[in-house]
Amino acid sequence: MTAPALNPDSGVARVVCEQLAPRVGDLAHNMELALDAVRRARSDRADIVVLPELTTSGYVFADTDEARRTAITPSDAFFADLTNLLAGTRTVAVLGFCEDAGPTLYNSAAVVDADGVRAVYRKTHLWDRETLFFTPGEQMAPVVTTPHGRIGVLICYDLEFPEMSRRLATAGADLIAVPTNWPLEERPDGERPAEIVQAQAAARANGVYIACADRSGTERGQAWTQGTSVINQYGWITATAGATDGTRHRAVTDVFLHLARDKSLSPHNDLLRDRRTDLYAQESPQL
Amino acid sequence: MTAPALNPDSGVARVVCEQLAPRVGDLAHNMELALDAVRRARSDRADIVVLPELTTSGYVFADTDEARRTAITPSDAFFADLTNLLAGTRTVAVLGFCEDAGPTLYNSAAVVDADGVRAVYRKTHLWDRETLFFTPGEQMAPVVTTPHGRIGVLICYDLEFPEMSRRLATAGADLIAVPTNWPLEERPDGERPAEIVQAQAAARANGVYIACADRSGTERGQAWTQGTSVINQYGWITATAGATDGTRHRAVTDVFLHLARDKSLSPHNDLLRDRRTDLYAQESPQL
Repeated sequence: MTAPALNPDSGVARVVCEQLAPRVGDLAHNMELALDAVRRARSDRADIVVLPELTTSGYVFADTDEARRTAITPSDAFFADLTNLLAGTRTVAVLGFCEDAGPTLYNSAAVVDADGVRAVYRKTHLWDRETLFFTPGEQMAPVVTTPHGRIGVLICYDLEFPEMSRRLATAGADLIAVPTNWPLEERPDGERPAEIVQAQAAARANGVYIACADRSGTERGQAWTQGTSVINQYGWITATAGATDGTRHRAVTDVFLHLARDKSLSPHNDLLRDRRTDLYAQESPQL
Repeated sequence: MTAPALNPDSGVARVVCEQLAPRVGDLAHNMELALDAVRRARSDRADIVVLPELTTSGYVFADTDEARRTAITPSDAFFADLTNLLAGTRTVAVLGFCEDAGPTLYNSAAVVDADGVRAVYRKTHLWDRETLFFTPGEQMAPVVTTPHGRIGVLICYDLEFPEMSRRLATAGADLIAVPTNWPLEERPDGERPAEIVQAQAAARANGVYIACADRSGTERGQAWTQGTSVINQYGWITATAGATDGTRHRAVTDVFLHLARDKSLSPHNDLLRDRRTDLYAQESPQL
């Protein structure tokens, strides 16, 4: 498919990823935390603002009841407040929330702009205890056309499946926004978190930007990686939030999303056209 | 599928990746270079030895005639010599060669042990000017069962397609051997070569070891990345050859290939079973 031209007056887009520390179970507090982050991003003229996974609910639920008490629907007043905040701007916000869908709960992300909730994506790859509270999503991750470019959405563990970033790239995503809660894992001295290495590889393999908003602080003993990063279409990190004071910090960078539409690597190579889709379903010869 | 048990007396396997500097077009010299590297690896009790892409021919061909003059078939005396070298050992060698297949040339890799040529893989993703000389392979990359574990084979640019490493992992590969010739690319200060970042991500996404043998030296003005590395099943680099003196250097490490058979990540997660193969062929919702 041929991706449409970008809005002609949108050569540069400012991306802000906010590394927040919601309080688990405290919906009112976390909603204000999210709105405040978007207010700040708006005043910094952010075009795209990404907040963490499950920003409005927190993550380390004691039980399903607690998860349920923090669940909201996309028609909740919170999203109306967020939409109002974005009125008159072209800012697009992507954030995680605990979605109330009747008997089921989803670990979801919403894409919101001045027109309201543009998309809701329900996480399809659940991590560890999330399987106790959430139902996995049944629909492939979306690509949302915005004045700044096309934004794909994944949530945390989804990004570790190369199939997901590939699918979004072939659907025309220029940038993948990734609300995440990366639990801190041990790693060799001097190494980046492995999740970031995988994000870098996903960006380079697909020639797309990736903007990950991670958690800060510690929640019920769970420390977070604080890996908030923006990665360019060559796989290099252009901004990070870094370790924070336990409340919040942010990664800010200006990106040129139209550059993600050029997948050429050499006079003879193109990242997506070079795929051998005729082969990938073949069995490997076993010798 | 259930992977078979490893040979009970093969808990540890020594991997040696030789970073060589063949001379383009000098078949006799390069064959001796390859045999010498395998001799050295054998005396170091290597179980698995990986040599670069196109070891026997060199890479920067002036024209198709030069490529053709360095092409050999899997029944060439060179492979008999290599087999003889490995007689009485359980050493497995993986190396790149320019394959003569009648009117066509392939950029191929052979897996050789004391029984002879066990497998030939023809590179399926050709890089840049390779498209002028070679025909792309038409068969998925193989997995070869050895006493040390199951070895998958990719060549250089193949590894940048996550579909390929995924396919080998689902076919049971414990380690992916990657003969490569990585042309040196600019990168930000302090960063690893992007190809290695992608190899690390491929290892972690699939829980497999990856052993890359790159080139050293410079060939007709083309500098090489000298990125020879062995990467463990968590995506961490356990051995590198590093920059060399222009002739050769090597990465040596002992690996426990049976560890690659455990894909569990948490009480609720498994790297391969967590794939949502029901979803990956779905179109992304376009909003």
